Amino acid sequence: MIVRGVAIALDFGGTKLAAGLVDLETGAVYKQVQERTPAEGGRQASLKLALQMVREGLLENADDARSAPVPGASSPRLPVVGVGVSFGGHVDSARGIVQRSMHVSGWEQFPLADYLREALSLPAFIENDANAIALGLKHFGPGKEYHQFMYVTVSTGIGGALVVGDDVLRGGRNLAGEIGHMVIQPDGPLCSCGKRGCLEAVASGPAIARIAQRAWEEDLKARGAGRGKKVKFQRAEEVFQAARAGDMLAQRVIDEAAKHLGRGISYAVNVFDPDCVMIGGGVSRSGAEWFDTVVAEVRANVLPPVAEELQVIRIQEDIGAALKGAAALIRARALARR
Amino acid sequence: MIVRGVAIALDFGGTKLAAGLVDLETGAVYKQVQERTPAEGGRQASLKLALQMVREGLLENADDARSAPVPGASSPRLPVVGVGVSFGGHVDSARGIVQRSMHVSGWEQFPLADYLREALSLPAFIENDANAIALGLKHFGPGKEYHQFMYVTVSTGIGGALVVGDDVLRGGRNLAGEIGHMVIQPDGPLCSCGKRGCLEAVASGPAIARIAQRAWEEDLKARGAGRGKKVKFQRAEEVFQAARAGDMLAQRVIDEAAKHLGRGISYAVNVFDPDCVMIGGGVSRSGAEWFDTVVAEVRANVLPPVAEELQVIRIQEDIGAALKGAAALIRARALARR
Repeated sequence: MIVRGVAIALDFGGTKLAAGLVDLETGAVYKQVQERTPAEGGRQASLKLALQMVREGLLENADDARSAPVPGASSPRLPVVGVGVSFGGHVDSARGIVQRSMHVSGWEQFPLADYLREALSLPAFIENDANAIALGLKHFGPGKEYHQFMYVTVSTGIGGALVVGDDVLRGGRNLAGEIGHMVIQPDGPLCSCGKRGCLEAVASGPAIARIAQRAWEEDLKARGAGRGKKVKFQRAEEVFQAARAGDMLAQRVIDEAAKHLGRGISYAVNVFDPDCVMIGGGVSRSGAEWFDTVVAEVRANVLPPVAEELQVIRIQEDIGAALKGAAALIRARALARR
Repeated sequence: MIVRGVAIALDFGGTKLAAGLVDLETGAVYKQVQERTPAEGGRQASLKLALQMVREGLLENADDARSAPVPGASSPRLPVVGVGVSFGGHVDSARGIVQRSMHVSGWEQFPLADYLREALSLPAFIENDANAIALGLKHFGPGKEYHQFMYVTVSTGIGGALVVGDDVLRGGRNLAGEIGHMVIQPDGPLCSCGKRGCLEAVASGPAIARIAQRAWEEDLKARGAGRGKKVKFQRAEEVFQAARAGDMLAQRVIDEAAKHLGRGISYAVNVFDPDCVMIGGGVSRSGAEWFDTVVAEVRANVLPPVAEELQVIRIQEDIGAALKGAAALIRARALARR
């Protein structure tokens, strides 16, 4: 089905704030502006900057926000159907309220959708970043091929989303698909949520660095060489580099983290029975072996017919992934109204 | 929304075959007939008996199956809207095909919905038993209160279903909600599916009996008394009885099985974020302590706000649960068409 027009897409991320005009039929990003998130200024500085980026950068100070100048498109101006937001934090999407930001203060219980609707005189919808990216994959990416799929993002945290038909499943508290806090290793390391051994505490980027550093320290101590260099692994990328260079300790830590992740994903596959699992996020770009181990562990832990049929693919989110996702929010709603 | 009329409901179970006339508005079972499943006769004997039960028992040999005599209802005859089936086996509900029965031979790839549609000249829909019971809970039971909930059945096997809105989520292979084959204990006992340590292999009724029996044998051996009575625990109910009588070995086995189940359910809650988990099946009727342990373990393994808000309730499926569920299939489709 064809949805004509563009969306104003906003991405409120931890380090960057982006805005774009996105074609609702193709996902093409016609215009894109980006700034560092003014985190020290709290919510108000972010909102002020975002509106300025939209008005000056996207709409070229036009009086009327209902159509936008689009140089690369088929006609010089296209109707603006709505404003979609990908937000890095907890979001109540049904009510359009930000519950909290992961990165910036002052966002607690803020009615962002209403705020944008008034400021821009357009329908506005918001979603957390994992759900938004998953919607982008559905409407403009490989998700077109699948009736139901799961998106998993592995970076600083581990999150995800479940897509069925044209929309995401949100769950009772907007937590559906958030697999990062399954307790995978009951006596494992402490997680930020207060429990022990959550998937996020044993398989995220920071977890890989932390576990490798501790293993390295113990290894040094065991060899009676505990007085040397104190920090070897600060970031997951350093562990992956060491593993590629043949460091067996690093290889073992990555292998275990990948297996934990694979088992966690297998649980989600058992529950949700998706046609495809799409794995993205910074860590997923780090190593082909890591990915192969994750996939093998998923297949080993699901029912045999599922192990045969399930697709598991790696997603390289480009810089526009969250903007496309924000636009997909508008597209999903336009389709649902038909 | 009001849905007027009755459904012919059929329940193809492992030990019994039941048929009933069920009110589509209230779930009231106006008439019900039941027979032992003629398992030795294969699919054909079951089909023949089912049609005979419908024609003679429910429709009183009326020429026209489009209305049914309903003694207890507001009018003497009510329109029959369709035929709904709860089937104990794998079912492709979208195509109306039984993939296989858990109990009776000859059902492989049988187009049961088409068969019933022709035989009774009515729309017919089929569903596996867990999905059907969950739909019954949604339309005629405590599920009315929840937008999304999960049903878990713990008996010979462990199965389940996910309900969102008026319908179940089916997943890519009709396996959504089937949590029994999550690998909960990677080096655990062998499961019927070929993997080790599946939830079903560590927490179902037969698993509880098997684990208790083995623990008891080992205990005997350790005390040098291995020549006595060889079988103490054959069924889970015997383990529960022993536990109630103070047998500490039985108590420990039940406690561990309940904790495994609770952790498995917690994974599903992390993925699906339901408002309520409803636990049914034969094992769930066996002990209040077992249930309390399951609930405590679920709460200990989900995010704190979920632990606070999530409802976990015990369902006592009555004899009509599968029939009500079969009727709910018709109701869900009637509502979806509006």
